Amino acid sequence: MDAIKAGWFSEFSTLWPGQCMSLQIKEILHNKKSKFQDIIVADTMNYGRVLILDGVIQCTERDEFSYQEMITHLPVNSHPDPENVLVIGGGDGGAVRELDKHPAVKNITMCEIDEEVIEVSKKYLPNMSCGFNSKKLKLHIGDGFKFMEENKGKFDVIITDSSDPIGPASSLFEKSYYELMKKALKPGGIVCSQGECIWLHLDIIQDMQNFCKELYPVVDYSYCTIPTYPSGQIGFTLCSLNPETKFKEPKRVLTKKELDDLNLQYYTPEIHRASFVLPRFVKKRLESADN
Amino acid sequence: MDAIKAGWFSEFSTLWPGQCMSLQIKEILHNKKSKFQDIIVADTMNYGRVLILDGVIQCTERDEFSYQEMITHLPVNSHPDPENVLVIGGGDGGAVRELDKHPAVKNITMCEIDEEVIEVSKKYLPNMSCGFNSKKLKLHIGDGFKFMEENKGKFDVIITDSSDPIGPASSLFEKSYYELMKKALKPGGIVCSQGECIWLHLDIIQDMQNFCKELYPVVDYSYCTIPTYPSGQIGFTLCSLNPETKFKEPKRVLTKKELDDLNLQYYTPEIHRASFVLPRFVKKRLESADN
Repeated sequence: MDAIKAGWFSEFSTLWPGQCMSLQIKEILHNKKSKFQDIIVADTMNYGRVLILDGVIQCTERDEFSYQEMITHLPVNSHPDPENVLVIGGGDGGAVRELDKHPAVKNITMCEIDEEVIEVSKKYLPNMSCGFNSKKLKLHIGDGFKFMEENKGKFDVIITDSSDPIGPASSLFEKSYYELMKKALKPGGIVCSQGECIWLHLDIIQDMQNFCKELYPVVDYSYCTIPTYPSGQIGFTLCSLNPETKFKEPKRVLTKKELDDLNLQYYTPEIHRASFVLPRFVKKRLESADN
Repeated sequence: MDAIKAGWFSEFSTLWPGQCMSLQIKEILHNKKSKFQDIIVADTMNYGRVLILDGVIQCTERDEFSYQEMITHLPVNSHPDPENVLVIGGGDGGAVRELDKHPAVKNITMCEIDEEVIEVSKKYLPNMSCGFNSKKLKLHIGDGFKFMEENKGKFDVIITDSSDPIGPASSLFEKSYYELMKKALKPGGIVCSQGECIWLHLDIIQDMQNFCKELYPVVDYSYCTIPTYPSGQIGFTLCSLNPETKFKEPKRVLTKKELDDLNLQYYTPEIHRASFVLPRFVKKRLESADN
């Protein structure tokens, strides 16, 4: 099948062989190759607008909030004082939107390799790219590896909001990247990365958890549900340099008023805790000594 | 698009407009209309065999365990003495397979309207239809409504393992059905029903929770992840006649040895508790007084 055919976009990848999610398309708004990847924005029949990079759905207006809230509020609420946050990737702006709202976050640095993703998001995805209006934000266009090498010991939290380990983001799933992040963190710093899907990528997840445990004293795995990511969920790899960190128990337990003020639709302190409770087949693989 | 085309089965429905899951097919093993519905069994490239009723995926060999374990072990482990269990639907046999393993369950009654689903499952889905070998099982072919009218006050737990509210199962999502189940229960009895998807059917779920609260003193909602159900998750409507029931806290907390003995791959006591923790947009709709 072709990716776009008879009014439907279909998401094929060797990362999820034999299965495919399709969205019915009203109109293609943008379809152009950047220096790094194919960028499509389309208006869908039931999911609002969708951003597609190299044939893979990155976010839709209908369900992006679950991923964007979780990849930001999980690490930020796990850190006692998350003043300085670095986002690697995240060119749609949704992660910055969430960080901007958080009262404990004072400075946001974003390093995105592909400026065209930001431009396209500004043009077509205002509910996410509103993040780029943040007064806390310093935007840097360039390679995340290089940026971290030049910015050691600077960040309380590093969020890697990347696409999958094929194409421009593949190096972000390797041990050398987690070593670099470790050096870019302040003492007690925390990282949180897009961590693939428990139903599809348990081998990748297990490998990553293993090498993370060689580098960080505390490593954990969380996930959220999201219909337009493959198999309907996406996980997060969380690591902390502070041996006292207990990711399952948020340091900052948001009150109902704070949840309202932050306009959160998915994240709550209870969801924070529950998101680390893994189905038994996952738990057995990731915590082999303790299942 | 057609449902089966170029080696792919595509799942279209007005219950999830504008989106579609497709599975790559190796071979169609069975494709025949019963008195009630179209029944397809196919061998897929990456999900083992799949059972499809009226164009909708019911179960695949790769991921069925999450749904089958949760729809049975959630209610059974919430009841202090779940001796007599009734299953309405569940013609693939997977729910009975789970109940048969459970030491507290003494008698299983199953009422399935479509005998051909059972026959097809016995022929093509041995890992699920092994449930039909249970010595605890009494199998009844017929209409669930009629069966319950003739069997009042008999069951500790009633599990409704049905397809969606279109076609033969639509009446199983109505208030009159929950009234009938109430009468078929023993004092303190519990029901657990396939409860659709929080990302797709929040209106249906909210309506059902509301009418259930008129009938039962305790009503709750839980969900699990499963790649081949629409949007990657499925929920469960749970009701109890015992005002003391706290679904979030299992009555019977299975030990590691019991989890091993029961060969559970998804369910654990921690998953039981976490499965009732709902994302904020769901919580706001279902617990409007308490969000």
